[in-house]
Amino acid sequence: MKFQEKLNNIIKKSNSLLCVGLDTDINKIPKHLFKTKNPVLNFNRAIIDATFDYVCCYKTNIAYYSSLGIYGLKALQQTIKYIHKKYRLPVILDAKRGDIGNTSEQYANEAFEVLDADAVTVNPYLGFDATEPFLKYKDKGIIILCRTSNPSASDFQDLKVEGEELYLKVAKKVKAWNDKYGNCLLVVGATYPHELGTLRSLLPNMFFLVPGAGAQGGDIEKTLRTGLNQSKSGLIIHSARAIIYAGSNNDFAKASRLRAKELKETINKYR
Amino acid sequence: MKFQEKLNNIIKKSNSLLCVGLDTDINKIPKHLFKTKNPVLNFNRAIIDATFDYVCCYKTNIAYYSSLGIYGLKALQQTIKYIHKKYRLPVILDAKRGDIGNTSEQYANEAFEVLDADAVTVNPYLGFDATEPFLKYKDKGIIILCRTSNPSASDFQDLKVEGEELYLKVAKKVKAWNDKYGNCLLVVGATYPHELGTLRSLLPNMFFLVPGAGAQGGDIEKTLRTGLNQSKSGLIIHSARAIIYAGSNNDFAKASRLRAKELKETINKYR
Repeated sequence: MKFQEKLNNIIKKSNSLLCVGLDTDINKIPKHLFKTKNPVLNFNRAIIDATFDYVCCYKTNIAYYSSLGIYGLKALQQTIKYIHKKYRLPVILDAKRGDIGNTSEQYANEAFEVLDADAVTVNPYLGFDATEPFLKYKDKGIIILCRTSNPSASDFQDLKVEGEELYLKVAKKVKAWNDKYGNCLLVVGATYPHELGTLRSLLPNMFFLVPGAGAQGGDIEKTLRTGLNQSKSGLIIHSARAIIYAGSNNDFAKASRLRAKELKETINKYR
Repeated sequence: MKFQEKLNNIIKKSNSLLCVGLDTDINKIPKHLFKTKNPVLNFNRAIIDATFDYVCCYKTNIAYYSSLGIYGLKALQQTIKYIHKKYRLPVILDAKRGDIGNTSEQYANEAFEVLDADAVTVNPYLGFDATEPFLKYKDKGIIILCRTSNPSASDFQDLKVEGEELYLKVAKKVKAWNDKYGNCLLVVGATYPHELGTLRSLLPNMFFLVPGAGAQGGDIEKTLRTGLNQSKSGLIIHSARAIIYAGSNNDFAKASRLRAKELKETINKYR
């Protein structure tokens, strides 16, 4: 089954566009977890158990795991396996990969074979042949960076190319790739609702992964108003820090559950 | 000591601009190595032992190791350690990373703490705040993708922005970053000698990492003619497949040594 189909099914079932980001920084998790053997996995499990019924998927940013070396890689594998096995929810691997063709094949292996992710984020700077090895996995979601949520996104993404911004050129290329492969999504930051609206007009049916709705200050109402598709869906609203670090004591997962519930309801208020 | 200083010292000592790429594909290494416990590490060691006096540095592309999971990560760590300990040569981690600020910090940890690389390749699409966490490591080399060697590089990198190509806009931003941090290099494919010349005029003193000189068909003479700086240096000429897979039987390392020697000499002929 295609990633987007899976996602549509779960969105209907959970009535949620929320994606919780397990971007787990070992320096920010509650201290008592260090009494256990596997603090990162135990933190993630607690967050997952507390939020699974409020989400349409999870996102794991590989950087937080890679920075812990072999331990981190194991914890990431165990986390993805846990989500799949216990809750049958899809997992996006946020890895922002991209390299020349034969190397991108290896990165596709990393994402889909080693880690068993359901979707991966890809950086478009190297163009089509760097993206194609990912696109060939037709049942996986290939989520291409378009307009990112960070302040410096404008350094290059807003440069005017023949009268329109670079991120729009990227979106148009992705539209063409998607016509052929049918498995593309875009990353569009919640911090840029105007750009989100422009992209929705260009791509009425494509799913957008929208980070930046929580700690980065993106406005939920504007994001939903400009980004929803005709079926009041098409957005994966991502929040990591605001949810996973909502609490810091023994009850941290309860605090995360409350925050996830609030965010899910805020999103649905504007759907 | 800064990465560029280290590099200059070794280039003088070895009289070589050659960088051998340990982009080790487990499916392409000689079959007899699978009788050993650690085929990837043993392959790399043999290549390193056979080429160390012909190179100015090594490059390891992390994708080939990540696609092997935990085994690959260990083999990569062991390979970098081996190069440092036995030959005191610098290692470039080709990882093409880049994410929003707090995440790029984690990627910088991966490159410089977990893997102990001397330099890392970074993708510029997210702009300055995604690059800054790397730039802060002032003694490390931060090698930013500018004009990559792959056929689809032109998809976005050649788009005209206010009359000049995007890759030139990237180069100009990197110039400004380098004025502040002093540790930037660029990736410029050997497959595009004209662009290399333009970039050399813009950045007379910056080191360029030049992939694509071997299996990808880049022309050495043109690359040297257009890319050298005033001191007949400033280029790191990278070749992986053409050298490391030069042989396929028990004598594979000898074949690699011969190919590395030839390539070093061809490069020096045009310096």
